[in-house]
Amino acid sequence: MTKTKPILTVTMNPSVDIVYQLDSLKLATTNRVTSVYKTAGGKGLNVSRVLHQLSCPVLATGIIGGNLGEFVTQQLDAIHLAHDFLSTTYPTRNCLAILHDGKQTELLEPGPTLTAAESVHFIQHFANLLPKTQLVCISGSLAQGLPSDYYVKCIQLCREKNIPCLLDCANEALVKVLHSAAKPTLIKPNLSELSQIVHQSFSEDLEKKLIDVLAKPLFAGIEWIVVSLGSEGAFAKHNDHFYRVYIPSIEVRNPVGSGDATVAGLAYGLVQNLSDEKILSLGNACGILNAQENETGKINVQKLAALREQIQVMKIK
Amino acid sequence: MTKTKPILTVTMNPSVDIVYQLDSLKLATTNRVTSVYKTAGGKGLNVSRVLHQLSCPVLATGIIGGNLGEFVTQQLDAIHLAHDFLSTTYPTRNCLAILHDGKQTELLEPGPTLTAAESVHFIQHFANLLPKTQLVCISGSLAQGLPSDYYVKCIQLCREKNIPCLLDCANEALVKVLHSAAKPTLIKPNLSELSQIVHQSFSEDLEKKLIDVLAKPLFAGIEWIVVSLGSEGAFAKHNDHFYRVYIPSIEVRNPVGSGDATVAGLAYGLVQNLSDEKILSLGNACGILNAQENETGKINVQKLAALREQIQVMKIK
Repeated sequence: MTKTKPILTVTMNPSVDIVYQLDSLKLATTNRVTSVYKTAGGKGLNVSRVLHQLSCPVLATGIIGGNLGEFVTQQLDAIHLAHDFLSTTYPTRNCLAILHDGKQTELLEPGPTLTAAESVHFIQHFANLLPKTQLVCISGSLAQGLPSDYYVKCIQLCREKNIPCLLDCANEALVKVLHSAAKPTLIKPNLSELSQIVHQSFSEDLEKKLIDVLAKPLFAGIEWIVVSLGSEGAFAKHNDHFYRVYIPSIEVRNPVGSGDATVAGLAYGLVQNLSDEKILSLGNACGILNAQENETGKINVQKLAALREQIQVMKIK
Repeated sequence: MTKTKPILTVTMNPSVDIVYQLDSLKLATTNRVTSVYKTAGGKGLNVSRVLHQLSCPVLATGIIGGNLGEFVTQQLDAIHLAHDFLSTTYPTRNCLAILHDGKQTELLEPGPTLTAAESVHFIQHFANLLPKTQLVCISGSLAQGLPSDYYVKCIQLCREKNIPCLLDCANEALVKVLHSAAKPTLIKPNLSELSQIVHQSFSEDLEKKLIDVLAKPLFAGIEWIVVSLGSEGAFAKHNDHFYRVYIPSIEVRNPVGSGDATVAGLAYGLVQNLSDEKILSLGNACGILNAQENETGKINVQKLAALREQIQVMKIK
């Protein structure tokens, strides 16, 4: 395994995630917080951590800045996870989750606004990392200041080098990719993201509708489309084949990062050249295992084999 | 001025203060914050900044840790304010103020818990700085893990070296000092802190009551006691003399840090050997100027001379 090229994960707008746990949030006064938890956050970093737990070589990249950027890399160093970020002068953001009164109130900072020069510089940095990479996972939103077709450029570079590229993003950044000639190897929209893109609801006759929608020209050339259905499992298209993934019902502790863990499992399955069924069971198993932990981007690898046995992948067409 | 020894300010539990400005804080959902402001916080740092603006040589010390500790020292470096902090492995805290719906909701992290070894180490560090110091300002709460009589030890060291020591703290840390033989040169309780200490209210006949209370044995040996009365000015005792300070009515922008600015002004007056009246007018003027700025620990030095003219210091006894 040690001589294998790593999977490169891309996080363009990472964060230091702060969780405050309070019995009650009192407004208009001072709250003294005794339960404080700070971690390196960002979808690509979650992917990285799960790959790392799967003993898959991984290299994390993206853009960081300031003292909070250093916190991010120190957190990765602490678990011996390789990284090669580009630094910006504007500091990495905090994202705050306050757990209080049985609710979760989030406060998200916007993060750095990149300059045109930094935008160009990161593309060069990314291109330089590609020869050392066997597969790329791009996850999450773009930093401010980057054009919405920025991931199109990243995917073009992967295509030129014939490196598979998984893309997990939403909104305008995803739409730009779908309308471009630069096709990612895999996308993983959830049902509501897909609904938004195709302006269609999936309330009934789910499988038939998904087959019709994913066969549209908009998705042509994308080898893998994995649509996550939450507790209902997943629906997938690989070239001309369609699959339904059934998962066991589980007790969810923290669903945050489950999609990222799924991407990690799918990526790991792809680089191992597993069968379609095994790729899908591995991806979904990682997602479920993440949901069973309190920590985001964490899976209990010991439970992986048994869980995969409980996941059914049915070929539909 | 350059050859003068600096004033040493002590901040045992500094912070990185984050201010989020929102039209409205929506609970149980995600708030995207566009107005984010981060500064080095802590009462001793506010004193330092005001002294620095007064062109008084200052050296900031205390305990810092981790990436947020580095942020604190970088903020001081950026304004060329000298510092010599002791580092702990546990990171410096965030203190968060959310300004929303016309309210201010604060979330304060506890900060590092110091070990017994660190407690001893800082005392040594502090003692090493004293020969380079002409006056010490100790401000704010103790870090967790420190005994409540920790400031007593600091003041003892100042006394041994014959260095004046100003103490601005509350609660148990102040009570321990008052009951010890280590007398600070100056304390600056506000009326409610004083009320708590002496278990007495000051609702009527204010000046007479203050004269009686400050003459109690509890305060014997403390050269200066400056009781801040908010918009009503201040009341002060210097040895056997009592003073009332009358201040002009002003528009308050941000009162946070006004007490610290007052300490800075008093300290600067003391090291310049000014008259009692001038020391008190300088301290109060700095407090007022801080309240007229949005930024904590900031004063408009240009306005200082004119404002001091508007402050009346009346000798009562």
